[in-house]
Amino acid sequence: MKRKREFSIIEMFKNKFSPSSKRIGLGIGDDAAVIDNFPGKSVFSTDILVEDVHFDKSFHPPQLLGKKAISVNVSDINAMGGIPEFALLAMAIPPSLKDGYIEKVGQGIAEGCRQYGLEIVGGDITRSPGPFFINIMIWGKVEKAVSRSGARPGDDIWVTGTIGDSHAGWLWLSGEANEKELKKVRANGWKGLKKRNLLYLVNRHLDPLVYNQAGPALAGLVNSMIDISDGLSNDLGHICSQSGVGALIELDKLPLSWSLREWAKQKQKDPFKIALRGGEDYQLLFSGPPEKENEIRETMRLKGVKITKIGKIQEKDWGIKIFHKKRLRPLKEEGWDHFVG
Amino acid sequence: MKRKREFSIIEMFKNKFSPSSKRIGLGIGDDAAVIDNFPGKSVFSTDILVEDVHFDKSFHPPQLLGKKAISVNVSDINAMGGIPEFALLAMAIPPSLKDGYIEKVGQGIAEGCRQYGLEIVGGDITRSPGPFFINIMIWGKVEKAVSRSGARPGDDIWVTGTIGDSHAGWLWLSGEANEKELKKVRANGWKGLKKRNLLYLVNRHLDPLVYNQAGPALAGLVNSMIDISDGLSNDLGHICSQSGVGALIELDKLPLSWSLREWAKQKQKDPFKIALRGGEDYQLLFSGPPEKENEIRETMRLKGVKITKIGKIQEKDWGIKIFHKKRLRPLKEEGWDHFVG
Repeated sequence: MKRKREFSIIEMFKNKFSPSSKRIGLGIGDDAAVIDNFPGKSVFSTDILVEDVHFDKSFHPPQLLGKKAISVNVSDINAMGGIPEFALLAMAIPPSLKDGYIEKVGQGIAEGCRQYGLEIVGGDITRSPGPFFINIMIWGKVEKAVSRSGARPGDDIWVTGTIGDSHAGWLWLSGEANEKELKKVRANGWKGLKKRNLLYLVNRHLDPLVYNQAGPALAGLVNSMIDISDGLSNDLGHICSQSGVGALIELDKLPLSWSLREWAKQKQKDPFKIALRGGEDYQLLFSGPPEKENEIRETMRLKGVKITKIGKIQEKDWGIKIFHKKRLRPLKEEGWDHFVG
Repeated sequence: MKRKREFSIIEMFKNKFSPSSKRIGLGIGDDAAVIDNFPGKSVFSTDILVEDVHFDKSFHPPQLLGKKAISVNVSDINAMGGIPEFALLAMAIPPSLKDGYIEKVGQGIAEGCRQYGLEIVGGDITRSPGPFFINIMIWGKVEKAVSRSGARPGDDIWVTGTIGDSHAGWLWLSGEANEKELKKVRANGWKGLKKRNLLYLVNRHLDPLVYNQAGPALAGLVNSMIDISDGLSNDLGHICSQSGVGALIELDKLPLSWSLREWAKQKQKDPFKIALRGGEDYQLLFSGPPEKENEIRETMRLKGVKITKIGKIQEKDWGIKIFHKKRLRPLKEEGWDHFVG
């Protein structure tokens, strides 16, 4: 009887995620989780991963997929300046997925939880007659929340890390890799690859790193913040529309990795286009007043997070433009498109 | 560009769910929702509805589907003795579903939120290459949480309302109704039906009523509680296994509706079997000490909730049995099976 499978998966997860926080009164296995409140504010978010929209089982190793499901949710809390603490896990599992596969997804989720210091306190597991769905709801505490709507003309625009890497990794995995290479990736993640540039790009797609210390550290110093999930172009568009401002991006300043540059050169692709439109980097895009520049730089240096100043917030009427080769061009809001797939 | 559709749906929901609680700092449209904590305990739960597993678009009107997605989640909080306050809404939408359909789902969600006094504070909307998927995560406050694990030998076993109705409604909708009848239901819900017994049963399946005042009122009086989502037999099994006890159910005492009895007679089905194994009634099943009987009865009378005493908690070694026609039989844990579909 397949209902038994559902219970056995819940049992497996229950063992993997036995709660340790003293604030958890009742956890997995009851109708709901009970948690002691702390004084202050909480921050809540949810992100769905749908098979064949957000991930491709044919190359995404299940353990990294589970970890990524946690990372993308942590990223939302981070972008608000919050610290994640707890999560609920909902999954709809196709009958064709083997228990060993689900167990590896669970291992990845547990690994992500350990890495970011959060705990799964409950969830719902059911059958899917179609794709594999993973939906995580995550919450934690926040002292000073940073919204998308606080950018002011004159603010510097900053981005953490390098951008475009994840999308380049995805382009290679989904279009160029041969079956032998995909098999290696599926078994070992990026570690199965030999070429150093591919290794980095594929890693960034399969196992994005979220600087979850950076968001709370920037809160209080910056005026607006978002995580780059839809692509720099789209996510800057969100900040501009919600803040009622325009923006200027200096294309040459975009932080591109050596790996992206090398790969784009080989493939005769424009790395800047990938960096502007590619999504899923989970880097932070934020704007802050110029007088805070030194403090912002020092704070991020102490956290070990690279940041780059890439432009300026402008008045709304000015629009959103990029400066490149001594020319100003409008930046269309187009990113990597989950809804198109 | 279909990405636009995702944004237009978010915009539609944003308008429908503009937050009113003063505790909500930031809501829909940012990376995460920010909410002021209150002193005490919070209770969290999540329930997924997957097309063709939990609902059938061919007869479930979208508005009632949206409302049911809220009700089933409210039911989990209710079963813990909690009061729901906030929710996150995650949906994966097949491209074939029209905007009008999604809007009606949204109307039903909004109606459910009004009815139970809770607010949607955020969510995630994406594309599904397969079934329609609605996942709601809900939380609220709880003073005294009632778990599944507190039942003690000697406790009376109680159930609210009548049971088996939802499953009978589903049996009719999914197997016996003709295309003309299904069309009426799809357009108008149960209101499209003429036969009084069918009307009631179908209503209980499409639009289950959750007595969300009953759970918190019972907390403090009862030792264990669960909502009947998997069927009385299964859910009593959860209480017994998690409390380490056995149970005796007197079959003749199960509260069956007139509609279920009539329908079962016509169809020559056993209404008790339907009541034991049918799921999705979202009635409360709870156990309490006999000395609290009067207080339990009076509390539920004041809330306008019918309750019925159906048996006794026993020692674990005694097992789980039903008493019927002067005979004791073991009650197998079998319910309506979501995982089988």
